[in-house]
Amino acid sequence: MDERAREHAEVLVGWSARIEAGDDVIVDVAEDAHDLGVAVAEELGAVGANIVSTYGSDELSRAYLKAHDGAFEAGDHALALLENADAYLRLGGGRNTTATADVESETRQAYSKAHSEVREARMDTDWVSTVHPTRSLAQQAGMAYDEYQDFVYDAVLRDWGMLSERMANVKERLDEGSEVRIVTERDDHPRTDVTMSVEGRTAVNSAASVAYDSHNLPSGEVFTAPYDTEGEVFFDVPMTINAKRVRNVRLTFDDGEVVGFAAEQGEDALETVLNTDEGARRLGELGLGMNRGIDRVTDNILFDEKMGDTVHLAVGRAYDANLPEGEEGNQSAVHVDLITDVSEESFIEIDGDVIQRDGTFWFEDDFEA
Amino acid sequence: MDERAREHAEVLVGWSARIEAGDDVIVDVAEDAHDLGVAVAEELGAVGANIVSTYGSDELSRAYLKAHDGAFEAGDHALALLENADAYLRLGGGRNTTATADVESETRQAYSKAHSEVREARMDTDWVSTVHPTRSLAQQAGMAYDEYQDFVYDAVLRDWGMLSERMANVKERLDEGSEVRIVTERDDHPRTDVTMSVEGRTAVNSAASVAYDSHNLPSGEVFTAPYDTEGEVFFDVPMTINAKRVRNVRLTFDDGEVVGFAAEQGEDALETVLNTDEGARRLGELGLGMNRGIDRVTDNILFDEKMGDTVHLAVGRAYDANLPEGEEGNQSAVHVDLITDVSEESFIEIDGDVIQRDGTFWFEDDFEA
Repeated sequence: MDERAREHAEVLVGWSARIEAGDDVIVDVAEDAHDLGVAVAEELGAVGANIVSTYGSDELSRAYLKAHDGAFEAGDHALALLENADAYLRLGGGRNTTATADVESETRQAYSKAHSEVREARMDTDWVSTVHPTRSLAQQAGMAYDEYQDFVYDAVLRDWGMLSERMANVKERLDEGSEVRIVTERDDHPRTDVTMSVEGRTAVNSAASVAYDSHNLPSGEVFTAPYDTEGEVFFDVPMTINAKRVRNVRLTFDDGEVVGFAAEQGEDALETVLNTDEGARRLGELGLGMNRGIDRVTDNILFDEKMGDTVHLAVGRAYDANLPEGEEGNQSAVHVDLITDVSEESFIEIDGDVIQRDGTFWFEDDFEA
Repeated sequence: MDERAREHAEVLVGWSARIEAGDDVIVDVAEDAHDLGVAVAEELGAVGANIVSTYGSDELSRAYLKAHDGAFEAGDHALALLENADAYLRLGGGRNTTATADVESETRQAYSKAHSEVREARMDTDWVSTVHPTRSLAQQAGMAYDEYQDFVYDAVLRDWGMLSERMANVKERLDEGSEVRIVTERDDHPRTDVTMSVEGRTAVNSAASVAYDSHNLPSGEVFTAPYDTEGEVFFDVPMTINAKRVRNVRLTFDDGEVVGFAAEQGEDALETVLNTDEGARRLGELGLGMNRGIDRVTDNILFDEKMGDTVHLAVGRAYDANLPEGEEGNQSAVHVDLITDVSEESFIEIDGDVIQRDGTFWFEDDFEA
């Protein structure tokens, strides 16, 4: 086994999920995540936790879903398992990222609806989602297998304590501030100049640990729920939206709403998203990617949106964690992230103060206001 | 996928476990049993059952057990999962049959003891244990992979309805009878001539279905709990006992107890078993193997003891299913099967009537009393 899989397991069990002796833990092992599964089992044994391992196979799911005819129901056993668990560790990494491509979306939705109680029970645990580097994910990323392993471990095996301290600075400024402005002015791109309010909203320091309300490993972003967006944004990082490749998206906001849009590729997929419901034309999230272990796009949102020196804006649903108790943020059936590179020819301001210029934050040595 | 895996899944779900719409089913998928897992998921979807798939990985178990230090406990989540399940389908077929060889037996026992409640909950479901033909099991059997697949499917894809009717004949004779005598007289072997009482005991028609109190697929044996054994038995089918190969065992019984023993190979392993406790020197089981799809020894007790035209005797614990309500059968910490070939130069009598000669039963066309 790659020694880094053991380190991955240590980070997952110790830093991310904060597992303690006697905790009842579910480890969900995808088809090709066996090595990480073994490493996590070893770590859970060392900690003295109790383990149930489930098999997270997309191919089993596809077979079940396609053969099933009639109304779905969640089993009592599925619900009982989750309701009695303290933590749920999802080890992604299947054999084929498109293994369920031929399952009808109505079937998925019916299954998903029948399992909402199970899903809520899972969200009530200290859940963490991570991936084992597999050949299938390497292929999705357009990378060689060895190269992709290096990429994943660079992203996962960070000094999370130090990164969380750096991110705390950004969270503090976002929490205190009222208006965020993002500007990019590259010669080869349309200009981005957009402002949005964050007044009264609480940013999340997403440091890949349940202790920070952060449930992805890797993570490394600070995000909040903006509103009253105005201006133009150009998203130069390619994305996959509903299985369609989308490139070079341009959005125009007026009075908080998308009033114009264009994309060089996949514009129809973008249009479908924006037409989902009223909230799909408003922002649900502003996120600053701060994980510099992630230095390239791999067509996997778990990694892409955390990439260092990027900013992402999501149209659609806002997260409760960003909202004051009792306040409703933007509502929508969708939440679709779009990413823009701010590593050069760019700056981010909060209430007129530049907090990042050309990918360097104000608390970093080579920052120039 | 091998079409026979789908047929295997149909037999497992339909004939063996008798799964119905709405049943809460656990499918435990071993490391290399993925294809059978997919076929079973498809079958469960078609039936309309609810599925939780667990990952039955010996390598995960080993990692957990070896790292764990201190007292084991079963998780509430593990117990809740089993207590809320209607059926448990174990799909064996790992990558290495000796994957847990370096786990201390004290550790196994401590884990097993802590999980007795979980195990009982599992036994309270309609559980069925089967195996997917893997390269690892082919290797254990000393067979090529394709050859082993043919072997497994020949054993599993029987006409179980017809076989259960044939076995019902044998069960009836055993239930009505008092004394069983087994004789083999081959030139190249020591003679077997042994008698035992089955008076008051109930035979099980083990037809690979929970409807027959039979929890293995394949099955195909009729077994009961004998006592008052007298005589000599020569077991010519090789066995593995506690990871040691044992060949050509000879046991001498007097007044129900083993009073003499020998083996050409593995005599020490045999001796350890016989010295376990008082019950380890008495028989707990007499079984007649009737699955003629199994025509060779593969060093896997799930198959070997069901081999057509064999008889097995187990020293140690008797099964409750063979005993009258409230009666205690032979008690022991062990139950070790030993097998003898009765396909030629042999006969089996019940109360003086020959019921099988040279591998042919009285109800078969070419039987000669």
